[in-house]
Amino acid sequence: MRGLLWAMRVLISRRPPPTRPWYNPHFGLTHDVARCAVQLATVTGDGLPAVRTVVFRGWMQNPIRDDEEGAGKPDDPIDVDVHLKFITDLRSSKMAESKVAEACWYFTETREQFRLRGELIMVTHESTDARLIRQRTGLWKSISDAARAQFSWPTPGSDRPPEADDEKDFRCPADINAVSDNFVLMLLRPNYIDHLRLKGFPQKRVLWRRGDQKSWDAQPVNP
Amino acid sequence: MRGLLWAMRVLISRRPPPTRPWYNPHFGLTHDVARCAVQLATVTGDGLPAVRTVVFRGWMQNPIRDDEEGAGKPDDPIDVDVHLKFITDLRSSKMAESKVAEACWYFTETREQFRLRGELIMVTHESTDARLIRQRTGLWKSISDAARAQFSWPTPGSDRPPEADDEKDFRCPADINAVSDNFVLMLLRPNYIDHLRLKGFPQKRVLWRRGDQKSWDAQPVNP
Repeated sequence: MRGLLWAMRVLISRRPPPTRPWYNPHFGLTHDVARCAVQLATVTGDGLPAVRTVVFRGWMQNPIRDDEEGAGKPDDPIDVDVHLKFITDLRSSKMAESKVAEACWYFTETREQFRLRGELIMVTHESTDARLIRQRTGLWKSISDAARAQFSWPTPGSDRPPEADDEKDFRCPADINAVSDNFVLMLLRPNYIDHLRLKGFPQKRVLWRRGDQKSWDAQPVNP
Repeated sequence: MRGLLWAMRVLISRRPPPTRPWYNPHFGLTHDVARCAVQLATVTGDGLPAVRTVVFRGWMQNPIRDDEEGAGKPDDPIDVDVHLKFITDLRSSKMAESKVAEACWYFTETREQFRLRGELIMVTHESTDARLIRQRTGLWKSISDAARAQFSWPTPGSDRPPEADDEKDFRCPADINAVSDNFVLMLLRPNYIDHLRLKGFPQKRVLWRRGDQKSWDAQPVNP
């Protein structure tokens, strides 16, 4: 399993090694940003499918082992038990939807698709786990001013009357030192990954299931 | 509503008019292909979210009015009651999943997202509607040899043993004149569209709901 998530990290890294077959020196910032766009699917309270684009905000290893244990090294345990970090708004419909989600990540350059299904963990202002609180605060500080300001906007998805004042509603300051109560660190902990490689002959598809903290089981299937 | 789906058609067209704000003469084939990649979410039999990348295969107006009535003109009724065309395999897991789906279409250049939710209609070899049969046959003829061959591959998602013969299994001929029984025309008929524009100030978000055959209701909401 280590290899699979390592490959994903390479795929999304901003400076891909030139030895990767998909490496192209003409890829610019647009591609990098696009590479961090992931579609996240949930199930609504009515049992309907919902899917939207979210921005991948990096990896976080299992907080029960936390980042003191060697995150960042190529062979560190993050590759076995890892969370994907996203952010959302406490007032977003995602908060009321299923606590299992599937992310679909398609890499145009390599024609690879990763479908990652697992538990969705919402770290809010009410979280009490010191490690998760630290992760949430760190992410708040790392995002842009514009991204922080959005958490002071009016409730997303609520009616917007024609007479609403855009300047007042959307030109919001946001204090980097005061984490908004609306700011939620959303973690996806995959326990099932469907990896499809369309490039080359033949296409390859492998289903990965988390066995325990230390391993994943791989099942090659027909593409 | 006409304007919304028209705008989507322009967004995905291969020759965008240069007056569109997102027009960029450097966009090449890769971008066009990427523009046709859509993420389609369903709900599994166990109530879990599922999402995968599918290739958009074009628009089809409501078959009860069919294409004699003027499809292709900029102001034709396709913009009011329209289906999105995709293809799938009769043996795919999608066939057993929810009959409501949501497609998420993100356009990197314009930073626009369309979430289209609606009924999923599977047109199989057992379909009896002459108009849908014609659509299915036409699509079979329009796809590439390589795409047609996939419907002769072994069952997708089934175990692939190490001793399997790739050459035998995946170098399949496919007769353009004999539509594979595994070939399914998959139609999505949206009745709910969540349109988000991230570009410009302020961001704009409108929820569209199909009222009847002739109109959609628009509800501006906070982004």
